[in-house]
Amino acid sequence: MPTIKSPLPADAQKVTGEALQGALVDLVDLSLVAKQAHWNLVGPRFRSIHLQLDEVVTTARQYADVVAERAAAIGVPPDARAKTVAASSGVPQPDAGWLKDTDVVSTFVAIHSAVVERMRERIAATEEPDPVTQDIFITVTGDLEKQAWMFQAEQ
Amino acid sequence: MPTIKSPLPADAQKVTGEALQGALVDLVDLSLVAKQAHWNLVGPRFRSIHLQLDEVVTTARQYADVVAERAAAIGVPPDARAKTVAASSGVPQPDAGWLKDTDVVSTFVAIHSAVVERMRERIAATEEPDPVTQDIFITVTGDLEKQAWMFQAEQ
Amino acid sequence: MPTIKSPLPADAQKVTGEALQGALVDLVDLSLVAKQAHWNLVGPRFRSIHLQLDEVVTTARQYADVVAERAAAIGVPPDARAKTVAASSGVPQPDAGWLKDTDVVSTFVAIHSAVVERMRERIAATEEPDPVTQDIFITVTGDLEKQAWMFQAEQ
Amino acid sequence: MPTIKSPLPADAQKVTGEALQGALVDLVDLSLVAKQAHWNLVGPRFRSIHLQLDEVVTTARQYADVVAERAAAIGVPPDARAKTVAASSGVPQPDAGWLKDTDVVSTFVAIHSAVVERMRERIAATEEPDPVTQDIFITVTGDLEKQAWMFQAEQ
Amino acid sequence: MPTIKSPLPADAQKVTGEALQGALVDLVDLSLVAKQAHWNLVGPRFRSIHLQLDEVVTTARQYADVVAERAAAIGVPPDARAKTVAASSGVPQPDAGWLKDTDVVSTFVAIHSAVVERMRERIAATEEPDPVTQDIFITVTGDLEKQAWMFQAEQ
Amino acid sequence: MPTIKSPLPADAQKVTGEALQGALVDLVDLSLVAKQAHWNLVGPRFRSIHLQLDEVVTTARQYADVVAERAAAIGVPPDARAKTVAASSGVPQPDAGWLKDTDVVSTFVAIHSAVVERMRERIAATEEPDPVTQDIFITVTGDLEKQAWMFQAEQ
Amino acid sequence: MPTIKSPLPADAQKVTGEALQGALVDLVDLSLVAKQAHWNLVGPRFRSIHLQLDEVVTTARQYADVVAERAAAIGVPPDARAKTVAASSGVPQPDAGWLKDTDVVSTFVAIHSAVVERMRERIAATEEPDPVTQDIFITVTGDLEKQAWMFQAEQ
Amino acid sequence: MPTIKSPLPADAQKVTGEALQGALVDLVDLSLVAKQAHWNLVGPRFRSIHLQLDEVVTTARQYADVVAERAAAIGVPPDARAKTVAASSGVPQPDAGWLKDTDVVSTFVAIHSAVVERMRERIAATEEPDPVTQDIFITVTGDLEKQAWMFQAEQ
Amino acid sequence: MPTIKSPLPADAQKVTGEALQGALVDLVDLSLVAKQAHWNLVGPRFRSIHLQLDEVVTTARQYADVVAERAAAIGVPPDARAKTVAASSGVPQPDAGWLKDTDVVSTFVAIHSAVVERMRERIAATEEPDPVTQDIFITVTGDLEKQAWMFQAEQ
Amino acid sequence: MPTIKSPLPADAQKVTGEALQGALVDLVDLSLVAKQAHWNLVGPRFRSIHLQLDEVVTTARQYADVVAERAAAIGVPPDARAKTVAASSGVPQPDAGWLKDTDVVSTFVAIHSAVVERMRERIAATEEPDPVTQDIFITVTGDLEKQAWMFQAEQ
Amino acid sequence: MPTIKSPLPADAQKVTGEALQGALVDLVDLSLVAKQAHWNLVGPRFRSIHLQLDEVVTTARQYADVVAERAAAIGVPPDARAKTVAASSGVPQPDAGWLKDTDVVSTFVAIHSAVVERMRERIAATEEPDPVTQDIFITVTGDLEKQAWMFQAEQ
Amino acid sequence: MPTIKSPLPADAQKVTGEALQGALVDLVDLSLVAKQAHWNLVGPRFRSIHLQLDEVVTTARQYADVVAERAAAIGVPPDARAKTVAASSGVPQPDAGWLKDTDVVSTFVAIHSAVVERMRERIAATEEPDPVTQDIFITVTGDLEKQAWMFQAEQ
Repeated sequence: MPTIKSPLPADAQKVTGEALQGALVDLVDLSLVAKQAHWNLVGPRFRSIHLQLDEVVTTARQYADVVAERAAAIGVPPDARAKTVAASSGVPQPDAGWLKDTDVVSTFVAIHSAVVERMRERIAATEEPDPVTQDIFITVTGDLEKQAWMFQAEQ
Repeated sequence: MPTIKSPLPADAQKVTGEALQGALVDLVDLSLVAKQAHWNLVGPRFRSIHLQLDEVVTTARQYADVVAERAAAIGVPPDARAKTVAASSGVPQPDAGWLKDTDVVSTFVAIHSAVVERMRERIAATEEPDPVTQDIFITVTGDLEKQAWMFQAEQ
Repeated sequence: MPTIKSPLPADAQKVTGEALQGALVDLVDLSLVAKQAHWNLVGPRFRSIHLQLDEVVTTARQYADVVAERAAAIGVPPDARAKTVAASSGVPQPDAGWLKDTDVVSTFVAIHSAVVERMRERIAATEEPDPVTQDIFITVTGDLEKQAWMFQAEQ
Repeated sequence: MPTIKSPLPADAQKVTGEALQGALVDLVDLSLVAKQAHWNLVGPRFRSIHLQLDEVVTTARQYADVVAERAAAIGVPPDARAKTVAASSGVPQPDAGWLKDTDVVSTFVAIHSAVVERMRERIAATEEPDPVTQDIFITVTGDLEKQAWMFQAEQ
Repeated sequence: MPTIKSPLPADAQKVTGEALQGALVDLVDLSLVAKQAHWNLVGPRFRSIHLQLDEVVTTARQYADVVAERAAAIGVPPDARAKTVAASSGVPQPDAGWLKDTDVVSTFVAIHSAVVERMRERIAATEEPDPVTQDIFITVTGDLEKQAWMFQAEQ
Repeated sequence: MPTIKSPLPADAQKVTGEALQGALVDLVDLSLVAKQAHWNLVGPRFRSIHLQLDEVVTTARQYADVVAERAAAIGVPPDARAKTVAASSGVPQPDAGWLKDTDVVSTFVAIHSAVVERMRERIAATEEPDPVTQDIFITVTGDLEKQAWMFQAEQ
Repeated sequence: MPTIKSPLPADAQKVTGEALQGALVDLVDLSLVAKQAHWNLVGPRFRSIHLQLDEVVTTARQYADVVAERAAAIGVPPDARAKTVAASSGVPQPDAGWLKDTDVVSTFVAIHSAVVERMRERIAATEEPDPVTQDIFITVTGDLEKQAWMFQAEQ
Repeated sequence: MPTIKSPLPADAQKVTGEALQGALVDLVDLSLVAKQAHWNLVGPRFRSIHLQLDEVVTTARQYADVVAERAAAIGVPPDARAKTVAASSGVPQPDAGWLKDTDVVSTFVAIHSAVVERMRERIAATEEPDPVTQDIFITVTGDLEKQAWMFQAEQ
Repeated sequence: MPTIKSPLPADAQKVTGEALQGALVDLVDLSLVAKQAHWNLVGPRFRSIHLQLDEVVTTARQYADVVAERAAAIGVPPDARAKTVAASSGVPQPDAGWLKDTDVVSTFVAIHSAVVERMRERIAATEEPDPVTQDIFITVTGDLEKQAWMFQAEQ
Repeated sequence: MPTIKSPLPADAQKVTGEALQGALVDLVDLSLVAKQAHWNLVGPRFRSIHLQLDEVVTTARQYADVVAERAAAIGVPPDARAKTVAASSGVPQPDAGWLKDTDVVSTFVAIHSAVVERMRERIAATEEPDPVTQDIFITVTGDLEKQAWMFQAEQ
Repeated sequence: MPTIKSPLPADAQKVTGEALQGALVDLVDLSLVAKQAHWNLVGPRFRSIHLQLDEVVTTARQYADVVAERAAAIGVPPDARAKTVAASSGVPQPDAGWLKDTDVVSTFVAIHSAVVERMRERIAATEEPDPVTQDIFITVTGDLEKQAWMFQAEQ
Repeated sequence: MPTIKSPLPADAQKVTGEALQGALVDLVDLSLVAKQAHWNLVGPRFRSIHLQLDEVVTTARQYADVVAERAAAIGVPPDARAKTVAASSGVPQPDAGWLKDTDVVSTFVAIHSAVVERMRERIAATEEPDPVTQDIFITVTGDLEKQAWMFQAEQ
């Protein structure tokens, strides 16, 4: 089995690796929850929110890929299997069944708020050990905060 | 809360709805497991299998969408949250950590074989109650069997 | 005048031809009625429903073309002139003049429900005489039921 | 029910609205009749005329949309339901059934000639009350006369 | 300094140049005000109106370019600096700060109504001195009236 | 040498494999014969038929690929070498040398009629053993019959 | 020989046809002269003017096509053979051989000025007999005047 | 009226919000001034600078949008109405009327120099309170400095 | 006036330059004559030949550009002004007025035959002095002969 | 039956026609054999060679078309019916059934070597009688030798 | 000779300029060495590595452009002539002649490792003097480390 | 280590291989020197020449690839490492530092002249041993001479 040699020293690799693994799980779960709402949505604003949620999915999937490949690039194998996501995600979960449009909006305000808070901690944690990873988190956070604004503006 | 009126009678709706929910969980989990292997892969055939797994992901995501929207269209709310997928998926799970290329190939032969078997049962189960849904399962199965062949051909 | 030789025996051609002619009229009229609502719509959800109706138009026109060319292919000349559509369509008609957005949504729930019911009868009627035509009706019905779900979800 | 305030005074709105409603019916019917011929055409020049008729359809549909939205923009609700088209169109109608290619060419020379004559009256009628609408009719007429030339050249 | 020789006699150039300068200021200001509302919008119809306002911006910018280049082409230097726009625009101004979605809709009904009225005067004023410029104003007015209709339909 | 494990039981595999092999040979030969006519065509309708035949080639090649890959997917190695095609095709053959346009049209009516008849037998033969393959044949047949209609319409 | 029936009365057809024939010759010659300069240009501004001249060519060719097809559409056969263009064009001609960049700029100021003057006469001449043709001339003139401005601005 | 909750504490929000508002005004004014020069430019380098200025416009508009939406995302309503821009922009203003090409180049060296200096102060000011906003300013500054080089290289 | 230094010795430049000038005139005239027929065509094969002639135009224009730029590249200024084309072209000329479709086909057989014969002489003449130019003529001739075949095949 | 008059004298036509007919058969057979291997391939390098072979197919089909149309253009009707290909191709044939990846590579080294050798004879044979055809063979040979190198490099 | 005024003070410009020059040489040399291996590669994994190396080339070229233009923007003329690259590059060099695929993989692991180490020093060196340049190095390093991972994963 | 078998006899391979290696070095160096000038250019014609040089780069890179792959295809390993290019290129070198626009133009007239002269020798040298390679050199030379003309025209 080949080994992926890290460009980071061991300490920096450990801190950065944990931040990336946490971000990966949050982003994958964000994509699953947004699809769930995309399908179960009902209410007069159905069409507009249905489309908006698919943009959330697309963005979350792209960043999950970037984050997971960054983990591999620093020698840390990423893990986003369903049971890992179910056990360690920080994303608040909606109930099963149909979801009213107004509830979906406030749910996604709360979801983005929770994920942004954790991402900002990761920006701080990686500043020293790996500016390359920090740069990724800054970009991700900027986009999540923009979506958070839009969901708030819709309330 | 509005109700989605089913175009099917209650019995047909129940059988069809269960088949669609089962297929949805399998397809979402297939996309998660293929991404997991895509990121953790090592070995001389890395590049070729890395790309091939992303095609599996793309296909699984597209069919998951078709299946979930069909469930909604017959009045059954679909459920693909992480904990539901972790609890009810029929997809064999890889271990965490790096994965050797030859092992990945045989794993995905097994995974496709398991999913195809369950899909064929769903084709049989929906023939009577809803030919529209059956037609979707036939298309999905044809594609999964094509991918199963390719992974077998690579062994 | 050349004759289009049917690949079907006379009985099968007659049943299939009638089903196709009926479907053609329903689909052309669906496209006209959706355009009518697209233009006359008023109310706060104007923009979102205005766009959604144009997708109904596009889909209906494409299937009308498929259905009419299938009729020709089995040797039955299709007829979708205005007077034929006005006389034999099964699509409920809106009044002339401006149409309120909430009324349009419930009108199109009713319209899709009526067309789907007739299409399901055509699926049953053509199973024996011509599976190629039946396959077209299955695809059309799946799409109409998906749109019916979306209009219901918006109520 | 909101009201669409007209940018035109009442008299100008009335004259312009009638011209637009007449043009709308003619253009929708032109699209229906061209599709009818597109499907029922037979004869050695089948393929070339089959394609040409689809261009007539595309053009007629686009102008119908422009004309109907102009009517709405000046506060007049447009009406292109099947029964309205059947009752008030100025487009000569073909018989049901297969249509010989040479007959189709001369039919469409006659159809374009009839529609162009009515459009030229509308150009004259709207010059005073609304030059914006007149400009639309001038463009439509230019295109219809170009198609009329092509059908004549093919005789 | 080279001189741009006008294709128009001096009188015609003066009248046409003033009409173009006035239209330029109105269109640039329309683009600024629509962006302002695009960013400061709040309320349940956020997403749909947010997108619609960007179409207003795109259209206004394109016509501003056409109008300014027409001014240059007849030898009149156009002026759309911020202070000129602030001093001479005929566009009603929104307050600073967040703007409610329902207020934005009625504001833009009023804005379009004001601009259309001034444009119609410019159509009349340029008919004699320069039909090329008049043709541009007719096209601009047609598009502005279409947008005015859509904002009215949404009230 | 790896083995491709069939998802079908042995009997079903045998029947389905023979149907697929027969269809493959017919489709490859259809593409060769249509190219032959594309190149050797003469007569006043040269250009229009020249283009139409290339569409026949494109369609036949695409379906040949689908059919061959389906054969591989059920564990049956497909064979479309020139000598196999020459020996077992069911497509009537044109003579060498220039071909008159009117003859080409009637030849392709006959060719499509022959292939359609064989395809319909394959639809019947595969209904029990493999609905996935049957679904492919249904699609192929629908397209071939559409082309058959067009060549008939042109006579 | 079929006849193209004019939608215009004989007098209007004569006036409009002469204006169109004159415009066609001017536009074809403009395209030839701009190509000539495109190839023979020398001097430090070579590259920028070389590209600009190709835009003149593209525009002139497109309008020549529109103008010629309009002539055909009103029943007047257009003539743009080399000898007709050489005999009746109103475009000033450059000498053979290399052309200095600064000379080319002033030449094209003169060329556009000459063509615009003739086009404006045609706008006046066709206002009564055919507003459709007049509308074409207005658009052509607007574009030529825009290019005239750009060449002047470069002096 | 909904409130946009800031992801930043109050102090950080105030500093960051002022920096964003200042940057927004500078970027909108840069786009207006570049358009002004684009239209009023004269001289032998007209064409090349005319195009280059439109790239300045496009870039400035895109960054203005990013900056304004970032302000909204941190709960600060952005303001870019004409009078606000006229009153608070830091962009040096050209005179009205035609502008010589060599003057335009040196004017835009000065304009970029002024804006870059203010942007670098904003990079420093936001490092502590909000690294996400700082990252946007770094990107904007890099692009403005690249354009500054190009205008200098042209002197 | 800068001089374009030829990469060829004087003798080779003279022979090659004359061949290029001759080819340029033929190709420009071919494009003019093909447009003439494109516009004046009448008869049942109107549509198909109308389109085919535009392909002749496109090809002739592209090769004219290649040939003229090659002349410039070897230091010989090309000349394709209308009077030069009218005086020295080797292309047989059609009469003014409407042209019957069957006549157009035989005319273009003759035109291509004449141009091909002259091109083959140019291939021979440039083999020694400039293989780069010869390579261009070979490509041009191959395309012209292909079009010659197609017009012959249509007779 | 029209005759295609050859631009070549009879002797040159005969030699060139035979070379083209031979090349056509080789290229069509190369496309068939490469498809055969594309479908029957097994082994660890499956995916990469599977894709590479499809590029061989695409290239061979394109050159076959060029070669056949060149034959027609010089008055020789091309023949690529299955039985002609089977009887006269110079391409070594693989056995029926699955093909190991390493065998496929060496097979295609041999196949390209055989075809290249025959193509080089055709380059020599056509130099005198028709340089246009020779130029086509030179291009074809260059591409085949590039592919031969790649297959060799993979051994 | 115009001077490019630096937006940085002299000290910062010196440090940043040296870092940019060093990065430029490394990136240009990386593109040359990757092309060298792309062409000289032999072995069973030829095709997959052949393609992967071209992606290395494309990336290296794009970043070389960004880095060189940043140097110019801060007033430092970049130098990437062949002799400068040969004298100062930090990229390990392969021997001339054919290169085995397994050796190429380990060579490129070493090459990326060497370049990444130097880039990380440049990130540290430019943090103080110029955050705009540092941001570019962070992005470049992230991409190089991703490619380093992929080559390691393939060993 | 596999051997690439040459399709050429040993003598022809030697002559052709040397010509290809020489051309490769010239073309790679042309791309490096053109990039150097693209970045270091200053002067009023900056923008236009900046773009033109990037076209030189693109063309040189594409032909370098064709030439290097042709070398490999005839069994000669190409060499374009920085030190090889620095040692054996025939391209005149600019000094380090900023380059004035007028100097760049005359430098590139000289550079193209030098490369063209060497290319013409290679055309002569390869005519006998390998017409496939000669054909590549003819195409390259034609393009280089066209660029040489453009730089001369700009002086």
